[in-house]
Amino acid sequence: MPGGSAEAWETLGPILKSIAAVAEGEPCVTHVGTDGAGHFVKMIHNGIEYADMQLIGEAYDLIRRGTGKSPAEIADIFAEWNKGELESYLIEITAEVLRQVDAETGKPLVDLILDQAGAKGTGAWTVQTALDLGIPVSGIAEAVFARSLSSKPDQRAAASDLPGPAEAWTVDDPDGFVEDVRRALYASKIIAYSQGFDEIVAGAEQYGWDIQKGEIAKIWRGGCIIRAQFLNRITDAYAENSGLVALLTAPYFREALTGAEPAWRRVVIAAVQGGIPAPAFASSLAYYDGLRADRLPAALTQGLRDFFGAHTYKRIDKEGTFHTLWSGDRTEIEATDSH
Amino acid sequence: MPGGSAEAWETLGPILKSIAAVAEGEPCVTHVGTDGAGHFVKMIHNGIEYADMQLIGEAYDLIRRGTGKSPAEIADIFAEWNKGELESYLIEITAEVLRQVDAETGKPLVDLILDQAGAKGTGAWTVQTALDLGIPVSGIAEAVFARSLSSKPDQRAAASDLPGPAEAWTVDDPDGFVEDVRRALYASKIIAYSQGFDEIVAGAEQYGWDIQKGEIAKIWRGGCIIRAQFLNRITDAYAENSGLVALLTAPYFREALTGAEPAWRRVVIAAVQGGIPAPAFASSLAYYDGLRADRLPAALTQGLRDFFGAHTYKRIDKEGTFHTLWSGDRTEIEATDSH
Repeated sequence: MPGGSAEAWETLGPILKSIAAVAEGEPCVTHVGTDGAGHFVKMIHNGIEYADMQLIGEAYDLIRRGTGKSPAEIADIFAEWNKGELESYLIEITAEVLRQVDAETGKPLVDLILDQAGAKGTGAWTVQTALDLGIPVSGIAEAVFARSLSSKPDQRAAASDLPGPAEAWTVDDPDGFVEDVRRALYASKIIAYSQGFDEIVAGAEQYGWDIQKGEIAKIWRGGCIIRAQFLNRITDAYAENSGLVALLTAPYFREALTGAEPAWRRVVIAAVQGGIPAPAFASSLAYYDGLRADRLPAALTQGLRDFFGAHTYKRIDKEGTFHTLWSGDRTEIEATDSH
Repeated sequence: MPGGSAEAWETLGPILKSIAAVAEGEPCVTHVGTDGAGHFVKMIHNGIEYADMQLIGEAYDLIRRGTGKSPAEIADIFAEWNKGELESYLIEITAEVLRQVDAETGKPLVDLILDQAGAKGTGAWTVQTALDLGIPVSGIAEAVFARSLSSKPDQRAAASDLPGPAEAWTVDDPDGFVEDVRRALYASKIIAYSQGFDEIVAGAEQYGWDIQKGEIAKIWRGGCIIRAQFLNRITDAYAENSGLVALLTAPYFREALTGAEPAWRRVVIAAVQGGIPAPAFASSLAYYDGLRADRLPAALTQGLRDFFGAHTYKRIDKEGTFHTLWSGDRTEIEATDSH
């Protein structure tokens, strides 16, 4: 992972260029800022791509297990989705991959591919950098972790007989479920993009780059793997309000999330009931519920940290930094130094 | 974050020692290996502590919102839990913090503490290092992200009017729900510890340390914040089978997870239905379902990666590395180099 300076990002150049070249044969990022800004933005592009692919995988898995549809039938669903708001390169090629039949066996190719996903590192870097910057990119992290979990055959074998739900899981209304999954996928994608753009904003601030966020979405739209119809919406959102505090609170995305929210919950509940792993769907929804919560148990966390480590806390009703004398008479004192 | 060498871990010493000193006034780790092994293990101890505290926070939040119990009543619940298999320092002090009443207002202190959690960095380092090592520590990551999310007041304000569930959420059987939450908490803790120990194993291998895993659990039990009854169980598990591929597959933990599994699902479903953020509960369960899955959509991920980047894939039915000529006649060729 590159270190914490603008200069360090420049060293990323050759690695990221080679990835871009392998991917599409053309560079994805033009000049977006000074120093390593372009590499940084390309890295986050790839991180979002991890989340995108994981969400697509979860959508496919849920539909397959929930409805019993074949890969070819699910290919048709993705092809149909590609005509609507989900239109994107990854949705398009998902249909192609799911439709592919193995010449030798006549089976769907996807059923013959070993289910252990590789990674080239940029997803992990995106998360590592986000951790340095204090940005919660949970959708991208869950996607990276899902790949590393898949590549632990010994652990998976040892865990394979752990119990799942006692009752067999069935979907009563397959068409309704497919539409729910589509909405959940769209909502979760919005979260992943919003988290990725938060990281760009924080990186630009940290490293002193003047990055035009709307322009980044434009560039990604044209040349990169995650080109997607709604990148236009991102450009619009930042054009309308360059000081947007979070992408998901822009009017278009707010409306999309509002429309998807009930279906999103139904899908995460179905996954849990069915024992189907949907870490990125579940994490995105938990992030959504966390961000909109009026109170978070972070208050208790702060109380615990003050108890065991005298880390102090702030109060909602007055200025200052406080500490309770937990091992003394439990009165509260004003602390001079917050740590 | 320290770099990828054993030597780099030695530089961590002063930082981690100061954290340990602040925490309990005594060192938590004795000599567990050469070079920076002790610092590495202490870092992961702190990472697991992040997960522990987040899970406790989610348990508290769910009980409070689901049953309407007061912080003092929930303090009693935690005190009761501390007599059973959850017995640990953090459970014990949670009861203390929840029972604390603000002298000035007469209100529960936890309701007056600003709900923005700070962090000193070791949680983030644990996740960053896990990403280098290819270990999915999703429980710890969600805990770190939950803290950073809580500390974004501008985003939280902008997102505060995003919609939650249309129907008010109520718990029909408060006692049953509290017991479900207890079981979900225990199961999720097992996942967090199992992930943390995976990271220790991978780190020992990567950096060439001969770490006695059972001994680590023993040391933690005595002096550290996450000292917990079931650290004995960890010691036992590794004593019984030093080559254990994953802690959660040891007989004791397997049995505990099996017993908790239905309650765990009910609690995650309740959180989703209620619109209560429970990212660590949800992520832990998704990890459990992922690890025990017979097939994962990672196969589709590999297909997509081969489509857009010629990253190749392996097959379940024969040796070798393969690539489909996606932009050609779509026949499959054997690849000489996997990348």
